[in-house]
Amino acid sequence: MRTRCRAWRREGRLALVPTMGYLHAGHLSLLEWGRGQADRLVASIFVNPAQFGPSEDLARYPRDLERDAALCEKAGVDALFCPEAEEMYPAGYQTWVEVTELSQGLCGASRPGHFRGVATVVLKLLNIVRPHLAVFGLKDYQQYLVIRRMAADLDLGVEIVGRPTVREEGGLAMSSRNTYLSPEERQEALVLREALREAERLVAAGERDAASLTTRLKGLIAARHRVRLDYLELRDAGSLEAVSCLDAPAVLAVAARVGATRLIDNTLLVPGSAAGKA
Amino acid sequence: MRTRCRAWRREGRLALVPTMGYLHAGHLSLLEWGRGQADRLVASIFVNPAQFGPSEDLARYPRDLERDAALCEKAGVDALFCPEAEEMYPAGYQTWVEVTELSQGLCGASRPGHFRGVATVVLKLLNIVRPHLAVFGLKDYQQYLVIRRMAADLDLGVEIVGRPTVREEGGLAMSSRNTYLSPEERQEALVLREALREAERLVAAGERDAASLTTRLKGLIAARHRVRLDYLELRDAGSLEAVSCLDAPAVLAVAARVGATRLIDNTLLVPGSAAGKA
Repeated sequence: MRTRCRAWRREGRLALVPTMGYLHAGHLSLLEWGRGQADRLVASIFVNPAQFGPSEDLARYPRDLERDAALCEKAGVDALFCPEAEEMYPAGYQTWVEVTELSQGLCGASRPGHFRGVATVVLKLLNIVRPHLAVFGLKDYQQYLVIRRMAADLDLGVEIVGRPTVREEGGLAMSSRNTYLSPEERQEALVLREALREAERLVAAGERDAASLTTRLKGLIAARHRVRLDYLELRDAGSLEAVSCLDAPAVLAVAARVGATRLIDNTLLVPGSAAGKA
Repeated sequence: MRTRCRAWRREGRLALVPTMGYLHAGHLSLLEWGRGQADRLVASIFVNPAQFGPSEDLARYPRDLERDAALCEKAGVDALFCPEAEEMYPAGYQTWVEVTELSQGLCGASRPGHFRGVATVVLKLLNIVRPHLAVFGLKDYQQYLVIRRMAADLDLGVEIVGRPTVREEGGLAMSSRNTYLSPEERQEALVLREALREAERLVAAGERDAASLTTRLKGLIAARHRVRLDYLELRDAGSLEAVSCLDAPAVLAVAARVGATRLIDNTLLVPGSAAGKA
């Protein structure tokens, strides 16, 4: 993979789309965008053990490599990189990357070590493929900021691109984990997107107070029995610092368990603007 | 620097010798070796704040850029990279690399955070220069192992080379910090090398027990009033795990304060072999 990518990199622009597989329309939109930006497009599929906690869903994370490979081929992927865990983390492996501040709070609080695992594996993939640009989905907004910061801090010389969340009909953010949901859970999960839309409406109507905004939205979510809120927070869109008054672009980020499935979503709230972007 | 090195890398082999400046014969031996191995040779001088503890000698660390530049030119260095701390760690910087196991103990115990700072800055330098090989001195043996492990774990595709310690007449290991020593301290500091030589003799004579070896050497060092031992330990030469019986190559590593100056040295002990290598 390294040798092939080195040759491609010399001939033109090279894009990487790192994924954990079980591809959905969100991934395909990243591949499509990367395809349009580069001469060569590499996708990776690696369900990275280092970003799962001990009680999380590593073992049952959905996998379908045959279907994924067909989708990648159709999307114009030039090479699909699917390393084994033993290749990425051989015996004696002990090097970890941390992006300290951006990894605090939100998913970093709910999933200790998660962003350390994410940053480390993405750095490894970037070092193997050495793309000119790498494309990530903005559903994982905190992840996008962590990776962008890492790339800048470590002088990687790679462009990190975040692309808008793709949604199912009804508004549920695309996620490989949606496959875990029962029909009832899928119905109740829509409240996450509804809460974000409600926030966009309230902000468009002049709401600026974070506490009053989040209290109202938490009330909406609490009405659904199958949905247990993990967090719903307004954070600065660049630094992820807590925001009490919306006077600069902020991300409203939400995470919840729907049944046994953990889902996340977010929207960008810009004071004076009517709609979110992510 | 990145642009120039990218062009050089395409034309032939590129070597990097990272230093903190105030060059001595040890550095020059690294430059000479790099010069012989590569078509282009880059040296860096950066007194890296991230690898100094709050009570350490960052502010008074010796600097003489003019002299260093002349020495580099004479050594055939093609480019000398001397970034400012504000360029390497701009406001908002927050990404750190840790090599967890090899950074434990020895200098990692005496200098908390030291190897995190070393690994991070070396990764940044490697990412900017992207050399085919990078050359380090084996006086900093633990540092060499940490960097070599990081390069392998993070798939950097760079060769990490360790070169033998260069010594002053009398045997004191070359170090920029030797300039701190008074004539009396310099004389007493020789006991560190004497202890390592004594260890080599004892091992050649059949000694295999780590405790009896280190007890004897500590006695030698304790006889010098100006020398306060930090550590003297026998560790596996590859993993740095503690060794109780010398049945595989091991490093005998020593650190001590001589007056106010912290010095380190080491030797490689190979059972069945008469002399150390580092």
